[in-house]
Amino acid sequence: MNKIDPHEWFTEVFEVEGSAFSFKLKTKLHEEKSPYQKIAIYDTEKFGHLMVIDGCVMLTQRDNFFYHEMLTHPALFTHANPKEVVIIGGGDCGTLREVLKHKPVEKVTQIDIDERVTRLSETYFPELCASNRDLRAHLYFGDGIEWIANCPENTIDVLIIDSTDPVGVAEGLFGMAFYENCFKALKAGGILICQSESPFYHQTLIKDIHKNLLNSGFKSTATLSFPQPCYPSGWWSATMAGKAIDVQNFNVTTAEQKDFSTEYYNAAIHKAALSMPEYMTRI
Amino acid sequence: MNKIDPHEWFTEVFEVEGSAFSFKLKTKLHEEKSPYQKIAIYDTEKFGHLMVIDGCVMLTQRDNFFYHEMLTHPALFTHANPKEVVIIGGGDCGTLREVLKHKPVEKVTQIDIDERVTRLSETYFPELCASNRDLRAHLYFGDGIEWIANCPENTIDVLIIDSTDPVGVAEGLFGMAFYENCFKALKAGGILICQSESPFYHQTLIKDIHKNLLNSGFKSTATLSFPQPCYPSGWWSATMAGKAIDVQNFNVTTAEQKDFSTEYYNAAIHKAALSMPEYMTRI
Repeated sequence: MNKIDPHEWFTEVFEVEGSAFSFKLKTKLHEEKSPYQKIAIYDTEKFGHLMVIDGCVMLTQRDNFFYHEMLTHPALFTHANPKEVVIIGGGDCGTLREVLKHKPVEKVTQIDIDERVTRLSETYFPELCASNRDLRAHLYFGDGIEWIANCPENTIDVLIIDSTDPVGVAEGLFGMAFYENCFKALKAGGILICQSESPFYHQTLIKDIHKNLLNSGFKSTATLSFPQPCYPSGWWSATMAGKAIDVQNFNVTTAEQKDFSTEYYNAAIHKAALSMPEYMTRI
Repeated sequence: MNKIDPHEWFTEVFEVEGSAFSFKLKTKLHEEKSPYQKIAIYDTEKFGHLMVIDGCVMLTQRDNFFYHEMLTHPALFTHANPKEVVIIGGGDCGTLREVLKHKPVEKVTQIDIDERVTRLSETYFPELCASNRDLRAHLYFGDGIEWIANCPENTIDVLIIDSTDPVGVAEGLFGMAFYENCFKALKAGGILICQSESPFYHQTLIKDIHKNLLNSGFKSTATLSFPQPCYPSGWWSATMAGKAIDVQNFNVTTAEQKDFSTEYYNAAIHKAALSMPEYMTRI
């Protein structure tokens, strides 16, 4: 049997699913304990730089485009005219960069609890931070749950929840209390989108997210599925909710004529990502 | 760093992509060297039984439905009236089972080089072999390349190439000579579909498959993408080719009204799987 030497490989074990994913390493570039979490940066053989938080793979240079594009463009092309965007989490700034590709956007506020994630991303993932100095970008470091609770009502067009897994600091980002505050903060045409884990491993969680969003007052919900090789099962999801609009429809023509480049997202992929596997239509 | 104990885990290392995927094991159920390859069967903690050939993961009980459904139903719902179906490879019989769900099918011939794969599947994956005694099913053990070369012209409606990776015994299943013989064996309305590796890792291979199919005389080609957690990158593909028909279109109404159950496939998923990531539209 193959042996994965822990000195040459980084492995994330998903004990609950009896599986593991490993990257072959060149070297460890950095490791620190921030006030919130343990952050490690590696240089890998084939995936470029890799960021790991508390033992969980956050992103790699090679494949983060799937996640960042699918957490942003579907919501921004569903909204009629997205001007005010808020990102909760997203400290690596990859989501911010994608949002700023949209010309109608006038202001993006990013609230991540851990400034160290952003500082390390500036050093080790500079391409993701390329738009951090865009005059429309506002970076705050603090508690996103608190920030949303104190946010004036009816002020946000698109609210993106770019969080870690629903454990530890991120747990509150999947609950009813938080969703209710998000609902209030959004304008009537507003859209929430959150990362919602694996459509293969986390079907119950996804179902609960829909239920909680609808119970918080949102009119419609939709889950988008997409590949994400570095995450458990290699398949990931984002869930959208419309305060008073249907998020199953989007501005197809605008998306087809997008004036910026992407690696994965396009209008056909957007439509495709909304389709539901047969087993999910049953639950 | 996490340590993957090789006594407790089966690991497949994809050296060329610097990554690895592991399953936590309960026990090894069987291991043998057939005349063609080394076959091992494990019982895993969370994926049920696992079949490994020459160190590569072939299938698990938990997630093989993605692959088997996507290698069959898209082609069978693209063909106007699939009566004669041939499967090259597919020794585990999961593809055969899916094909036999289609009532118009009158005969399915499966040609796998290694009888031991089928015998072990009967023992360890009995659910995949549930239709092996269907009167429409004909199992032969022999060389699929030779079988197709000797096949009378214009006799097959749907030809499914359910092969291992393009190395060793399966290498010839990806070449021009084989595709030309497939083309001859198919009727005018006929369709070929082959497994075509990962849309993330194997973009060049997929491009070459399209080129080879078109150069072999096929009128149209289309690649379908779908999740497959146990395969490299967690994302896999099948490529279809129509002898004289357009394989981008399918019988949507028939697919929507299918009279059998599936886990992943449905008409919306079929349409979705045909969409191309932005980076693939460029190559």
